[in-house]
Amino acid sequence: MSSRTEQQEQHGQGGQGGQQASSVTVLGLGPMGRALTTAFLEAGLRTTVWNRTPGRDKELVERGAISAPSPEAAVAASELTVVCVVNYDASDAVLRRAEVAKALKGRTVVNLTADAPDRSRSTADWAADHGVRYLDGAIMTPTDSIGTPDAVFLHSGPLELYREHQPVLDALGGTHTHLGEDPGRAASYEIALLDIFWTSMAGYAHALAVAKAEGITAKELAPFAQGIGAILPPIFEDYAAKLDAGDFSGDDNPITSAVSSMHHIVHTSEAHGIDASLMRAAEGMARRTVGRGHGADGFVRIAEILGDRG
Amino acid sequence: MSSRTEQQEQHGQGGQGGQQASSVTVLGLGPMGRALTTAFLEAGLRTTVWNRTPGRDKELVERGAISAPSPEAAVAASELTVVCVVNYDASDAVLRRAEVAKALKGRTVVNLTADAPDRSRSTADWAADHGVRYLDGAIMTPTDSIGTPDAVFLHSGPLELYREHQPVLDALGGTHTHLGEDPGRAASYEIALLDIFWTSMAGYAHALAVAKAEGITAKELAPFAQGIGAILPPIFEDYAAKLDAGDFSGDDNPITSAVSSMHHIVHTSEAHGIDASLMRAAEGMARRTVGRGHGADGFVRIAEILGDRG
Repeated sequence: MSSRTEQQEQHGQGGQGGQQASSVTVLGLGPMGRALTTAFLEAGLRTTVWNRTPGRDKELVERGAISAPSPEAAVAASELTVVCVVNYDASDAVLRRAEVAKALKGRTVVNLTADAPDRSRSTADWAADHGVRYLDGAIMTPTDSIGTPDAVFLHSGPLELYREHQPVLDALGGTHTHLGEDPGRAASYEIALLDIFWTSMAGYAHALAVAKAEGITAKELAPFAQGIGAILPPIFEDYAAKLDAGDFSGDDNPITSAVSSMHHIVHTSEAHGIDASLMRAAEGMARRTVGRGHGADGFVRIAEILGDRG
Repeated sequence: MSSRTEQQEQHGQGGQGGQQASSVTVLGLGPMGRALTTAFLEAGLRTTVWNRTPGRDKELVERGAISAPSPEAAVAASELTVVCVVNYDASDAVLRRAEVAKALKGRTVVNLTADAPDRSRSTADWAADHGVRYLDGAIMTPTDSIGTPDAVFLHSGPLELYREHQPVLDALGGTHTHLGEDPGRAASYEIALLDIFWTSMAGYAHALAVAKAEGITAKELAPFAQGIGAILPPIFEDYAAKLDAGDFSGDDNPITSAVSSMHHIVHTSEAHGIDASLMRAAEGMARRTVGRGHGADGFVRIAEILGDRG
């Protein structure tokens, strides 16, 4: 264990153990964990790694990573441990082991594992009970964005703790946004954003299948599909403003038009024997909103009806 | 009925009746039909209009449109009739009336009504049987884009006929693409593109509802939602190339990761009592692909499995 460095003081680093602030531990060496480790190594940080399944660290060790024999040894090697495993069942299975919890006492965990917000909050409670300083985050961009300006990280938890570790987190590149003290907040944003992403991707996969059945190659559809992608962001912004303002006016685009369009898509898909359950679900959401008497309203009314549990 | 103009000759205009090429008839005065009429009027075309429900043409007549007393009188007033009604049941109900079919003989119909491709093909067959020259198109952008560079029109049917009427269609602004001689081709593209659009919009509406339940306003989510929208077009292009090439490699983003992410979204949505049928359908598509032994493949494998009816 080395003594504190100037950098540590500069960031107001507290905690116990006296490791360099320019050191970090990464638990989990899946594709994302490896990308995080690589970015830390390239930033010149002393990086200790551990993975449940051995052997994943070979290439990283060749590039300068320190392979820890156990998770407790790994977390003891740095003030800051970044966790990125498959889900919170997996992160709990490592962090909540008695030896690991003991070694983490007074140290900081930044959990970048993806899961539901309630799991983030539960882990934050556990951390508080065990004297572990805890931040919860989300990575919104693919592995190849890590270490580049394209990476997008969301963070939540104590702002002061976030600021303390920001210099190390900045080594991961991209933009980092602290969204609030609620430890589940980064995961809440992640869930909502991935809801948009995966639904859109599923819609695209379905559209490619329908296009192919209609004799249109993916390459032929691509420029027009990109055109659809390009019109979404301004519509997203417009609808956000309308929803927050409670403006559900349909103007020239009532929900009934959307329902008609969705029905043609279901018909064409099923005429080709292609499963249309995704569009059927979308159509169902729209039809239920029409059934509640909002057929002349704009599409954004669907968001309000979905969230209305009365 | 006026005599032919130089412009008519220039465009190689055939047909009967001898109206000016710089004249057009619009059937259907819903929001889109009114926008089309306005663009034709602003381009200086002699524009005749008719709508099933009377009274919709008042403002257009004040701006110079000619109100026809019947659909047969309307189509007789121009070489080119543009149809934009709610669906093909509605366009059939007008076009296939004996008096209208008779008046259309030798003239051209451009049907911009949205529906399924099989309806376009059926109407093209009917037109051929009745000596009506027929083009079928789709409008991919909202009413407020009409007459501006943002408008996107897709066309299909005989290329020569399309070229003949292109100068009048160009009055609608935007970009016009002729996609092929199959009269259903514009509708096929439209179905595939609206599949992406409406699925994405439904996902966005759902995400807004989940975000709200998590205490996130639409405005707070908006910049990140726009970020998701911005990464879609390049992913669409990448996946199109992979699908056409039969490249289903998962690399660092296997379908199993998507399934895990989708599961967290369903869990969080339903924990708030918010219907998750849309994401459940997307998850089902992904899980069926995993179940077929493709869990390590990339997401684009889902498009192939959806289209595989074996």
